[in-house]
Amino acid sequence: MRILGIDPGLQTTGFGVIEAQGQALRYVASGTIRTTALALGDLPGRLKLLFDGIGEVAQRYQPAAAAVEIIFVNVNPQSTLLLGQARGACITALVARELPVAEYTALQMKKAVVGHGRAAKTQVQEMVRRLLQLPGLPGPDAADALGLAITHAHAGAAMARLGNAATLQRRQHAMFKGGRSY
Amino acid sequence: MRILGIDPGLQTTGFGVIEAQGQALRYVASGTIRTTALALGDLPGRLKLLFDGIGEVAQRYQPAAAAVEIIFVNVNPQSTLLLGQARGACITALVARELPVAEYTALQMKKAVVGHGRAAKTQVQEMVRRLLQLPGLPGPDAADALGLAITHAHAGAAMARLGNAATLQRRQHAMFKGGRSY
Repeated sequence: MRILGIDPGLQTTGFGVIEAQGQALRYVASGTIRTTALALGDLPGRLKLLFDGIGEVAQRYQPAAAAVEIIFVNVNPQSTLLLGQARGACITALVARELPVAEYTALQMKKAVVGHGRAAKTQVQEMVRRLLQLPGLPGPDAADALGLAITHAHAGAAMARLGNAATLQRRQHAMFKGGRSY
Repeated sequence: MRILGIDPGLQTTGFGVIEAQGQALRYVASGTIRTTALALGDLPGRLKLLFDGIGEVAQRYQPAAAAVEIIFVNVNPQSTLLLGQARGACITALVARELPVAEYTALQMKKAVVGHGRAAKTQVQEMVRRLLQLPGLPGPDAADALGLAITHAHAGAAMARLGNAATLQRRQHAMFKGGRSY
């Protein structure tokens, strides 16, 4: 299954596309969508760039599913509000194309990629490089986006192992108690 | 010019369409887009309903411009974050259709519609009813949306009176100093 990961941001949104076949993961593409060419106050213009940019990525790489980072309330409420609007535009770009959207926290992504939730940015970049056998380190935003796609691939593999959805629902509680968050 | 006003909300988004010919305003349509049929946690599904709903309204009434309420940081940061994402989806629905989007605060809308910024919800409803010669009171969300469209019509009329954009820029400072916020 081809998965598109999105790390939303108003100025820089990271994207990463991987192909997951069971446990095997293959890198397809990654990069960033930047809105910094526009005036800071032009929020509608920036949201349009995000919508169009994600639309282009989805059009070109034809993912079957998407994974978007869950954001939390920030120290700066105004930044939180702006980031929320950017994330709303990113998710809208995905659902407008009928893509199923899964959501993961940075903690879940770090656990899935690095093995623990307190991993630094550079550790995520390094582990993403290794897992996808990249020739060099991906940028931090692209690495987070690829990490989200990897997290979703792991979650999908876990669900497949557990069999049908009914079984999954009964076992999910036990999984979470066991300290695995995907 | 036909104007679409949007009062964004995650559960209920108000919309209102008016036709503005100079000072004359004519009611075209108004209503709400509700996402309450979906599970509370289904944020992507809710954002899709907002995107599709606003898209249908824009398709049916063919506005030439849109006006969206500016939101502020709320007492509850989690609500602010959710509202931000809803607003992001609403604006995205407009810019995806190449509609120019103007933004106004509730204060600016109340000043434009009622004459002062501390007006209650019911005063906005009553003034919108009078200005658009409606047979009955519009609902509060639809009234706010119609109020935003009226605010944008006033702003457009003010700009037209002031002549070209260069003149406007020079005079805008003076306008704001004079206590008029549109």
